[in-house]
Amino acid sequence: MGEDRTDVRALAGLTTVVPPGDPWLGMMLAEHGAARVWAELVAGAPPPTVDEVPGDGPRMVDPERSAAHWRRWHTAAARVDVDALMAASAAAGIRFVAPTDPEWPGRLNELQAPGGRRSHGLWVRGGGDLRNLCLRSVAIVGARSATAYGEHIAAELAYDLAERSVVVVSGGAYGIDGAAHRAAHAAGSTVVVLACGLDVDYPRGHAGMFADIARTGVLVSERPVGAVPRAKDFLIRNRLIAALTPGTVVVEAGRRSGALNTASHAVDLHRVLMAVPGPVTSAMSVGCHLLLRDRQAGCVTNADDVLAQIGPLGDVPPGPVRVVTELTPESARVLDAVSRNGSGPAVIAQACGQGLEPTMRSLGLLAAAGLVERCPTGWRLPR
Amino acid sequence: MGEDRTDVRALAGLTTVVPPGDPWLGMMLAEHGAARVWAELVAGAPPPTVDEVPGDGPRMVDPERSAAHWRRWHTAAARVDVDALMAASAAAGIRFVAPTDPEWPGRLNELQAPGGRRSHGLWVRGGGDLRNLCLRSVAIVGARSATAYGEHIAAELAYDLAERSVVVVSGGAYGIDGAAHRAAHAAGSTVVVLACGLDVDYPRGHAGMFADIARTGVLVSERPVGAVPRAKDFLIRNRLIAALTPGTVVVEAGRRSGALNTASHAVDLHRVLMAVPGPVTSAMSVGCHLLLRDRQAGCVTNADDVLAQIGPLGDVPPGPVRVVTELTPESARVLDAVSRNGSGPAVIAQACGQGLEPTMRSLGLLAAAGLVERCPTGWRLPR
Repeated sequence: MGEDRTDVRALAGLTTVVPPGDPWLGMMLAEHGAARVWAELVAGAPPPTVDEVPGDGPRMVDPERSAAHWRRWHTAAARVDVDALMAASAAAGIRFVAPTDPEWPGRLNELQAPGGRRSHGLWVRGGGDLRNLCLRSVAIVGARSATAYGEHIAAELAYDLAERSVVVVSGGAYGIDGAAHRAAHAAGSTVVVLACGLDVDYPRGHAGMFADIARTGVLVSERPVGAVPRAKDFLIRNRLIAALTPGTVVVEAGRRSGALNTASHAVDLHRVLMAVPGPVTSAMSVGCHLLLRDRQAGCVTNADDVLAQIGPLGDVPPGPVRVVTELTPESARVLDAVSRNGSGPAVIAQACGQGLEPTMRSLGLLAAAGLVERCPTGWRLPR
Repeated sequence: MGEDRTDVRALAGLTTVVPPGDPWLGMMLAEHGAARVWAELVAGAPPPTVDEVPGDGPRMVDPERSAAHWRRWHTAAARVDVDALMAASAAAGIRFVAPTDPEWPGRLNELQAPGGRRSHGLWVRGGGDLRNLCLRSVAIVGARSATAYGEHIAAELAYDLAERSVVVVSGGAYGIDGAAHRAAHAAGSTVVVLACGLDVDYPRGHAGMFADIARTGVLVSERPVGAVPRAKDFLIRNRLIAALTPGTVVVEAGRRSGALNTASHAVDLHRVLMAVPGPVTSAMSVGCHLLLRDRQAGCVTNADDVLAQIGPLGDVPPGPVRVVTELTPESARVLDAVSRNGSGPAVIAQACGQGLEPTMRSLGLLAAAGLVERCPTGWRLPR
């Protein structure tokens, strides 16, 4: 357990210095474990060697480029204080979920390394349980510059799916994503997959929506608190949207929309790809029609069509998805130690007989679930 | 040749008494020839026996029902004067094309009997050569109660295809059919497949359009002059639209549109089925989306998509389709005998040394090609 935690802390630290889905990191982690890779990176040791099977993937390790990366990562890692990172995250209601954690969505393991840009850890914010939410889910994605038609269809589709306890996963952007999130949140649960730190609220105009969603759904990112989104992060992020769900619906997409990138990931991952048709006179439907024409996307016009395409959603019984995680014994002890009037995390940690870091982690989870709240003195029971 | 003509005349006569595509008639024709079947029908002899191979098709001959049909057909056939039929047709610019004629479109032979509702003969009106026109063709069909969107798309598609020398085949109805015919006629050629006699002009409001089309394109029907359309005739007619072309595009169709029946025929005949998507909020696109979802229809949004789906259109060289048939020696002699001031058909027949019936037939062809015209005294060269 102690060793596990060291690995998890190492993975959290690595999110601050290595880009999400780096295949070389994936190979090192598989061979040497996160704790050792992180320790050697911080120490500035040479990179642990990996056995690369030739032809075992599209990406080979280029020794020179790798060495340069390793040096850059080391410089960044040497400055990382994992305790502070965990504390800052917890303070923002953000927890770290590693592949070994119960909240880890099993579908992400289908992002196989090498080449597959496996995910090495997720930052999660919100009262939902990411794994449970994704079991019975569908991704609804599309253009930011959507038309009224597209936003109308996205909202209707998301609402009807959420009403049937299907969780809507999307990218939190303006346009189709926002319409889908909002409608799904109104009728059920939704998962926002971001390309930035979960405290960054990008796009700005969706900060309120993100806060609303965090109450029952979750926000997810591979990037740590404070990380601002760069253009390439959106593309890397898109693979998560496709991987977290059994199927992706593209509602509107221009000829070069990022939604088509998500669609490609869905195809690569053998997920069900669906597209909503629209007027052939609309530039915002061109991408959907390309998917229907060239990518064998299923033609969907309503929630029934989507459910028929997805098929029975695994072994999840129909009915409302459990939104709040059952408390771990650790978190239950922390909750017992939180008072009505509030106290600082060190006091709480001492009261429940646990270390500061696990206490912070539990406080973040409890806050996300609405069971504790911030106050001037630290944390208190909600009034 | 004389025997051939007897067969052709018999087939023409049969169109007046037997419904198009009757499978039992098809079996009798295959086994005994049209001349004999017609002669025995007119004489009221018992129906010629046919060898029915069990399981060789969905329809078996029911002796009782067949006998009843045969009696009804005999009653009608006894009243038919084939000479008068041919003369009335020629007078209306309508010629009869039998499966043995050079103008017969070979694709129709893929309507295999038994069960396949093979066509036994076509009435044709217009200056085009039906076979040539259909070589490089596409069917564009859809709802009568089309939306402005649907008519716009149908027209654009038809115009762009016609401009590339693809002949547009449709059913002559209001809505999508009319929009497609009109646009195709403006840029090239079009073929109208009707469920009524070619002098009947159904729907009435398209009489002017039909007359326009007859100048360079053709109108086709399995039903003789004067035949009014009954509901079931449209469904039987639809198989011709699908069979005449290598592919069918459905532009707009409600959930129960007749265009979906044409689409089914296209699938049964291994033709390329295509559908134009539209707003999922439009009831007139529901049928198209069903075809995309359930019938593996290709998603097409413009003429390029259609051409890509159809593939290379056989061995027809690109370029304008030959519109006017080369004259047969028979017709050339008739044309020579027609004067500027006009004369009756008997005079013309005598002048060119041919019988009245072949002369009438040639006059019909010549009129359709615009080389002769009607006048108070009979026929004359156009002024």
